[in-house]
Amino acid sequence: MAKGASPLDEFRKSIDNLDATLIYILAERFRLTKRVGEYKRDTGLPSSDKGREAQQIARLKALAIDADLDPDFAERFLHFVIDEVIRHHERIKSGTGE
Amino acid sequence: MAKGASPLDEFRKSIDNLDATLIYILAERFRLTKRVGEYKRDTGLPSSDKGREAQQIARLKALAIDADLDPDFAERFLHFVIDEVIRHHERIKSGTGE
Repeated sequence: MAKGASPLDEFRKSIDNLDATLIYILAERFRLTKRVGEYKRDTGLPSSDKGREAQQIARLKALAIDADLDPDFAERFLHFVIDEVIRHHERIKSGTGE
Repeated sequence: MAKGASPLDEFRKSIDNLDATLIYILAERFRLTKRVGEYKRDTGLPSSDKGREAQQIARLKALAIDADLDPDFAERFLHFVIDEVIRHHERIKSGTGE
């Protein structure tokens, strides 16, 4: 522990480091889904793919259990991200930005 | 590209890799916030800290801009995670699991 730092400060510094990592990984994820959106637009595929989503949810819940993370939280997290992705894809299709 | 894999399959494999990383980082983040919750319980600190949250939001929005991620999405993401953390902290205080 750094001299003078409280235990709370130490935890928060580590949380801040993890949060920065999460932001940069999410940014990269949206770069990829932007390309998926462009590919779907160009090939006429729909923005949403419920079969793919079901596979993602099952996989992430299994990973969450392995990581000792609440699998229901993992599912809600994926929905949170996918909802944003679908909004982006609709914008790509309609040509309003991104 | 792997032989026979479509562009969509290739994007999805990369997205799956990033999602696994996100799940494991989130799991580690909740391990840390669990310890923060225990520390707050033991020292009588409140579960929520609006000053800390404001600092986190400002920092993550700046990082999001650097990463070319929508800063409003970064803020919503942090709220999504913090809401879960506060639920955990309330459970720690009340002694109902975690």
